[in-house]
Amino acid sequence: MNRPQTLKGFRDFFGDQLRLRKQVFNVFEQLFREYGFEGLETPALEYADVLLGKYGEDEKLVYRFTDSGERDVAMRYDLTVPTARVLAQYQHELPSPWKRYQIQPVWRADNTQRGRYREFYQLDADVFGSSEMMVEAELMLLGNKALSRLGFDSYRLRVNSRKVLNAIASYSGKPGKFADIVSAVDKWDKRTPEETRLDLINRLGDEQAADRVLQVVSVSGDNNEVLSTLSELLADIPEGVEGISEMREIVTLTGDPDWLAVDPVIARGLAYYTGPVWEWEISDGNIGSVGGGGRYDCLVASLGGPDMPAAGTSFGIERLLDIMQERNMSIAQGPITTQVLVTVMSEELAAASLAIAEELRDKGLTVSLYPQVRKLGKQLDYANKNSIPFVVIAGEDEVKADEVVLKDMTGGTQESVRRAGLADFIRARVD
Amino acid sequence: MNRPQTLKGFRDFFGDQLRLRKQVFNVFEQLFREYGFEGLETPALEYADVLLGKYGEDEKLVYRFTDSGERDVAMRYDLTVPTARVLAQYQHELPSPWKRYQIQPVWRADNTQRGRYREFYQLDADVFGSSEMMVEAELMLLGNKALSRLGFDSYRLRVNSRKVLNAIASYSGKPGKFADIVSAVDKWDKRTPEETRLDLINRLGDEQAADRVLQVVSVSGDNNEVLSTLSELLADIPEGVEGISEMREIVTLTGDPDWLAVDPVIARGLAYYTGPVWEWEISDGNIGSVGGGGRYDCLVASLGGPDMPAAGTSFGIERLLDIMQERNMSIAQGPITTQVLVTVMSEELAAASLAIAEELRDKGLTVSLYPQVRKLGKQLDYANKNSIPFVVIAGEDEVKADEVVLKDMTGGTQESVRRAGLADFIRARVD
Repeated sequence: MNRPQTLKGFRDFFGDQLRLRKQVFNVFEQLFREYGFEGLETPALEYADVLLGKYGEDEKLVYRFTDSGERDVAMRYDLTVPTARVLAQYQHELPSPWKRYQIQPVWRADNTQRGRYREFYQLDADVFGSSEMMVEAELMLLGNKALSRLGFDSYRLRVNSRKVLNAIASYSGKPGKFADIVSAVDKWDKRTPEETRLDLINRLGDEQAADRVLQVVSVSGDNNEVLSTLSELLADIPEGVEGISEMREIVTLTGDPDWLAVDPVIARGLAYYTGPVWEWEISDGNIGSVGGGGRYDCLVASLGGPDMPAAGTSFGIERLLDIMQERNMSIAQGPITTQVLVTVMSEELAAASLAIAEELRDKGLTVSLYPQVRKLGKQLDYANKNSIPFVVIAGEDEVKADEVVLKDMTGGTQESVRRAGLADFIRARVD
Repeated sequence: MNRPQTLKGFRDFFGDQLRLRKQVFNVFEQLFREYGFEGLETPALEYADVLLGKYGEDEKLVYRFTDSGERDVAMRYDLTVPTARVLAQYQHELPSPWKRYQIQPVWRADNTQRGRYREFYQLDADVFGSSEMMVEAELMLLGNKALSRLGFDSYRLRVNSRKVLNAIASYSGKPGKFADIVSAVDKWDKRTPEETRLDLINRLGDEQAADRVLQVVSVSGDNNEVLSTLSELLADIPEGVEGISEMREIVTLTGDPDWLAVDPVIARGLAYYTGPVWEWEISDGNIGSVGGGGRYDCLVASLGGPDMPAAGTSFGIERLLDIMQERNMSIAQGPITTQVLVTVMSEELAAASLAIAEELRDKGLTVSLYPQVRKLGKQLDYANKNSIPFVVIAGEDEVKADEVVLKDMTGGTQESVRRAGLADFIRARVD
């Protein structure tokens, strides 16, 4: 091996970092199941023509090559396009509506920088085949539970609608400038209203149009107040009325929780959204969006799948993980680590140590047997380095007396414990 | 999308098949944790020169290409070579000894056939840095628990030693013919002893040598008898004496269980084994090996890692999954499916249905809300197709009376239940 190293943008995971990753994935999977979502896994490689033509400018970031059978193949670049392929391929085998989640790595030959990798996991949950707002409401409730279970205590969900954004463009008198308006409004949080205004004037070439946009996006108040004001302003634009009515429905269905804010500023970049759009933000620390979602009723068909309404949510799990690691957050249930190290004092005592380890496992404890005879200090050291809280020492005298010495690595104390009651004794202390 | 299809040798997973897969992976992960093994995940792509030169003839099956940065890269082909790279790269960060497991997909541009895929998962558990037999003993005990938890009730572990195989070659008088002897002996189960004898004569060109090999490999009896006979036959060959002594230690450490059989026929193909080798076989149905392992003290260094003893085990999880699906096996804990479908009777009742679903989830049930208003028959149909055992129907009268109708899809019965006691009512029936 000339270079014992990973490719740039690729990572190895082990130890605490991998434990946290697996726990975060588990929190989401558990939640998806609680909400009746079904898993999907698609292959790492697809025919290139399944993926190509779907990502616009970003297409050059697709890992693509010719395989040994002269097939033009490409590595999974996102989870949406493969899902559209699955919808087309198995249309009659899949339940309808189909609630599915997918958590898999994707690969992008992108520039690397802090927090941006060439191999990273995406996490999508989508409902295919329903156009009703209860889909959006459930995805939002699920997102709230996810962030709460991950241990975040300060976050909010900002909700808007593509229909309202379209209506704003009409209201401004510049419907053709939709993309410009979205671009200008999208930076709202990072600028003063006056800066946004100047940008809008610049883009629209019309002061009055800019002011009409500002009038709408600067509405404030609680959700009902915001929706009422929007209703008044956009009353003459049917698409806006419809978008507002949908948001009102979402507010009702979710029970208008504290964490949900209707906010006409939210645009959510991707062009394919057709209805409600939303973004999750961690409030403290100015971290910005960690997830979001929206309705995209035309996307599946445009990707070659069947013509069906759809809405979905996704979380930036690599970003969430980075934040959790930076903040030293651990998940409420605690990291799943080894609870007990059983030491081995001599070759002759190896069988006894192994038997003790098996007894403890049979009682439901997670137990590592130190895999060789070494000085006790070395073995205790290992327990320390691996954060194993209890060490069982079974010397010749102890084994004869059906006892062990139990060392509490946290407190530093040790005591003799009858082997028959050892598991219960430890359980009482680790639970 | 011109071809809505997966590449040959690649698979999509969803529904029951994915549920079973995830459960099988969980059984192993849970066991690895109980035994104090730590997870490892390595990237899908490596520098090609990390992988090349490691797989001999099979090298042509490595998916390899030049990326957009002109790097020569290759897709993960197995889990051992990347682990050797990790051992080299993070030598001082890893605990020593290091007990690690890895469950990840690998990619091979191989011919496809029944049960052989181009993308499939491998599962390895290895201990790096210990040369003691308790490592082997633990890996065997773990394997026994895995097969038992997966629901297999008839299987065995056949154990041999590379040292004993070497000694057999010496005993035959043809130490240079080791590979031939192993090849002939390896097919023992599929042939009569006379066929093996003729093959050996053919390969060794010496009737007496063939008979001496046969004399050793046809020993029978319980483990102690087999070990005693081997000891007598190979008493003059130090390597054989050592191999037998190691196997004796394993038999003692594992408690000589019913499922363990010392068997000098087992060779386990790979050339890199240096000590004990073993294979797991499902006894009923003539399925052959579903897993195995062995000691390979020189491999890590030969792959570019540090010079350290190692032993490991791996299971053919795709094969196990195929067998479990063929046999309609489900895992003892039962598949994790949705327990309750909450129906939606009208737009006006959507909020009530959503609230009921949330109430049930808060009580720990897995609940799918049918995501649109449809005829009740359609919604019940969906529950049936998705094997959801209970359906909650909340019509206008029920919602007013704080009640629901609960339909038991298995029994076909239905009854009115107070909403306040609904979760407990269902729990009592699903548990």
